[in-house]
Amino acid sequence: MAFLKNAWYAGAWSHEVGRAPLARTILGEPVVMYRTQKGEPAVLSNRCAHRFAPLDRGRLVDDALECPYHGLRYDSRGQCVYNPQDDGVIPKGARVRCYPAVEKYRVLLNETAATERADIAKIPNFDFIDDSGRYAVTTGTLLIRANYELVSDNLLDLTHTQFLHADVFKSEAVMRGRFEVIEDGTTIHSKRWCPDAPPTPPLRLALNYDKHVDFWMDMRWDPPGLMRLDVGATPTGKPRVDGVHNLEMHLLTPETETSTHYFWADARTYGINDPVVEENNRRALEHAFIEQDKPMLEAQQAMLGTAELWSLNPVMLKGDAAALRARRVLARLIGEERL
Amino acid sequence: MAFLKNAWYAGAWSHEVGRAPLARTILGEPVVMYRTQKGEPAVLSNRCAHRFAPLDRGRLVDDALECPYHGLRYDSRGQCVYNPQDDGVIPKGARVRCYPAVEKYRVLLNETAATERADIAKIPNFDFIDDSGRYAVTTGTLLIRANYELVSDNLLDLTHTQFLHADVFKSEAVMRGRFEVIEDGTTIHSKRWCPDAPPTPPLRLALNYDKHVDFWMDMRWDPPGLMRLDVGATPTGKPRVDGVHNLEMHLLTPETETSTHYFWADARTYGINDPVVEENNRRALEHAFIEQDKPMLEAQQAMLGTAELWSLNPVMLKGDAAALRARRVLARLIGEERL
Amino acid sequence: MAFLKNAWYAGAWSHEVGRAPLARTILGEPVVMYRTQKGEPAVLSNRCAHRFAPLDRGRLVDDALECPYHGLRYDSRGQCVYNPQDDGVIPKGARVRCYPAVEKYRVLLNETAATERADIAKIPNFDFIDDSGRYAVTTGTLLIRANYELVSDNLLDLTHTQFLHADVFKSEAVMRGRFEVIEDGTTIHSKRWCPDAPPTPPLRLALNYDKHVDFWMDMRWDPPGLMRLDVGATPTGKPRVDGVHNLEMHLLTPETETSTHYFWADARTYGINDPVVEENNRRALEHAFIEQDKPMLEAQQAMLGTAELWSLNPVMLKGDAAALRARRVLARLIGEERL
Repeated sequence: MAFLKNAWYAGAWSHEVGRAPLARTILGEPVVMYRTQKGEPAVLSNRCAHRFAPLDRGRLVDDALECPYHGLRYDSRGQCVYNPQDDGVIPKGARVRCYPAVEKYRVLLNETAATERADIAKIPNFDFIDDSGRYAVTTGTLLIRANYELVSDNLLDLTHTQFLHADVFKSEAVMRGRFEVIEDGTTIHSKRWCPDAPPTPPLRLALNYDKHVDFWMDMRWDPPGLMRLDVGATPTGKPRVDGVHNLEMHLLTPETETSTHYFWADARTYGINDPVVEENNRRALEHAFIEQDKPMLEAQQAMLGTAELWSLNPVMLKGDAAALRARRVLARLIGEERL
Repeated sequence: MAFLKNAWYAGAWSHEVGRAPLARTILGEPVVMYRTQKGEPAVLSNRCAHRFAPLDRGRLVDDALECPYHGLRYDSRGQCVYNPQDDGVIPKGARVRCYPAVEKYRVLLNETAATERADIAKIPNFDFIDDSGRYAVTTGTLLIRANYELVSDNLLDLTHTQFLHADVFKSEAVMRGRFEVIEDGTTIHSKRWCPDAPPTPPLRLALNYDKHVDFWMDMRWDPPGLMRLDVGATPTGKPRVDGVHNLEMHLLTPETETSTHYFWADARTYGINDPVVEENNRRALEHAFIEQDKPMLEAQQAMLGTAELWSLNPVMLKGDAAALRARRVLARLIGEERL
Repeated sequence: MAFLKNAWYAGAWSHEVGRAPLARTILGEPVVMYRTQKGEPAVLSNRCAHRFAPLDRGRLVDDALECPYHGLRYDSRGQCVYNPQDDGVIPKGARVRCYPAVEKYRVLLNETAATERADIAKIPNFDFIDDSGRYAVTTGTLLIRANYELVSDNLLDLTHTQFLHADVFKSEAVMRGRFEVIEDGTTIHSKRWCPDAPPTPPLRLALNYDKHVDFWMDMRWDPPGLMRLDVGATPTGKPRVDGVHNLEMHLLTPETETSTHYFWADARTYGINDPVVEENNRRALEHAFIEQDKPMLEAQQAMLGTAELWSLNPVMLKGDAAALRARRVLARLIGEERL
């Protein structure tokens, strides 16, 4: 399996990265993340060029990361800037790979392309993450031992909420709502619209409204695995702005071919300063992600073993349409990179 | 390594299978077992045809098993009978493999052949399992991390009882008793006859007789790994019916190439309603199987690694004759299946 | 990867080997070690020739090791000398491999060559191990989950003490001392000489001398991984005999391609009968070996995965010169064995 190289991947939450080096495997490559004294993020290969010792176990000397084994130091661009041996002469080739990094939406995004910069403008708009006036934001991270496309499959077919998450998110309207898939360039939209129906219990509670509502679950996917969800409900016939929203960011970063760093954020328009709502919302999301999605995705991966999904001839349902298109877009982009 | 497909394998004890789906890997394939409302056993592939979710985590809706991920339902024949999407249209090909199942001798036996039914008549007679008037029956299950042929090797050469199980089953007569191997079609008999000798301590206790006895250990093997043992003792010169017997069923089912589901049952003719005898008998058997055979078999497998037994040129002893023939029968049958 | 076969490897400390069989994997092969009643060491393959049961789980009957499974017995040369079946006839080929063994320097050394004896004279002189009049000796064993050449790399470039072990062995003189590498046949000497300098804290303490000293770290390597270290200090300008020494033996035995049995001994000339010095010395060494070297070596191995060191184009520093030569000698010897 190949990964899309010319793309942005979330490496860490901004708050995770500081003066203590942080190691993480991304796209199968060991990286180390830290901040310079000015606070700028550095993302380097975690393997010293000399004897491949893990740099994250070293210490920062000003802005340089010192190898814990024999003391070579690398600056935040990955260039060796200090050699304690050899009269201080820096050996030719003594550098480690530096990954371009951008901080946005509270996340450190790493690019892995060797040849050209991925277009930062292609990252979808998650402005809600930083809009604390209008939203209360909850975040979390999971390591899921399954391929990242199984995770995006999951998120692009939200009918699974009616079975896997039935204990919390059940509404009989979901399965009969209108389902629309829109392909726009490399972006896939998966939209569910459930008019004049009983909402899911969390939406009912959020809206504090006992009658029928119009509700929606609109997911947007951009390669390689950047996803934006708008779930909300409004009293039937009212405009969406009169209702409640949960806007979510789901960023999927392959750790390996069979494991995924999953960064999620949920921004809600209701109960913004209410700690009980905050607690209930977090519990519902973590229950769904940690206790239901994660075991299911890992069981799927175990069933697949090393086989590709398509090689097993899966039966296709209508609800797979968005996931299918996302997989096709990704396969096409990866194929183009190889040319 | 190949498995014999056109054959019966024990999948579970009957009492293990009910309205809670039971997952087990058999011959490397994930299966799920449950009972219909009428109590009939169903054995299906445990991988949903849609996205390969494990069906055993789903729930039974009447007699259909509902996939826990997106809600497809399969009847006890493996046919998808309900699709919550697509206006209820069942997609073509939406079925999972159904394994023929027979219940006999308190065991759910699964057949894995795709093309024709294995001959149920070839299962050896274990009627003693159900004859509670004449026998007290003790059962157990082990998962042994060794190839199933190593387990049948073990059972077909009972000289190992004099070393591996010497603390319980030692009798100096065993090694000098008469040993006979009979090949009858695809059945192998391995018989040991020890006349006018001190029996093993458990037999002495069972017979409650201090003098010399005639005792025997007769093992029958049928492919792929169905084994019947008759161990007993009678006062020297008396007919066998005057003595005590332990009749045993040993059913070996490959989980993978290097692990085995081992179902055993012991039916004794003595102390039938005596809880102390029951307890002592169970303890002796579990001590031998769990604390002695299992570690030895797993150590053997570790020594073999991925090598086939024959590739390492094992030295052959006379006591291997039955195991050798059983391996030959099995290899021949597997070879014939491939034609 | 290949191992050098015609060579001596440490299998165990002498005190580990007795009448209780000891199993260990050496060069990927399972061996069992024990002593005859006269105290002579026996080193055999741990796989019974019959069914590959692990002999170390058996018992010694006089000088013969009895297989725990079916009772074959092997003498200390690996020849089967007792068969409880077959009227006692020993089957042709019923033997297990016997490894030549020599005891020296408190260690049981095993040779693995099948064809000719490795030259025992090539084992370097570690007489200090047995010279309890002049030295206090501390020993230890580690299992390191890294290739043994990574361990010898570590020991042949002691600049790492200034980073990995900086908390105990730091002296700014080490990096600017004179470094000399001498290749003498298949022996590599790696010598560091630090005149008129502050010693490392342990040497300062050992010497009980506050002023500048001359100190040295002289490592000798012989294939496949037999290493002798002389670390010491003397008041500046005085002969070495006026100073303190730690003489060390480091014996590296591949368990597998990615794990190493590491036997070490430290003989010091100071505080010979002082339990506090003994305790401090042991603590410092175990801290360095167990808490610093072992995790670093295992992290290196994890970074390398299955790749060979050279395939990753490591940057070379001057301090690598000895390790580089040792690797070349070993590669040449292994290559010659294959001709």
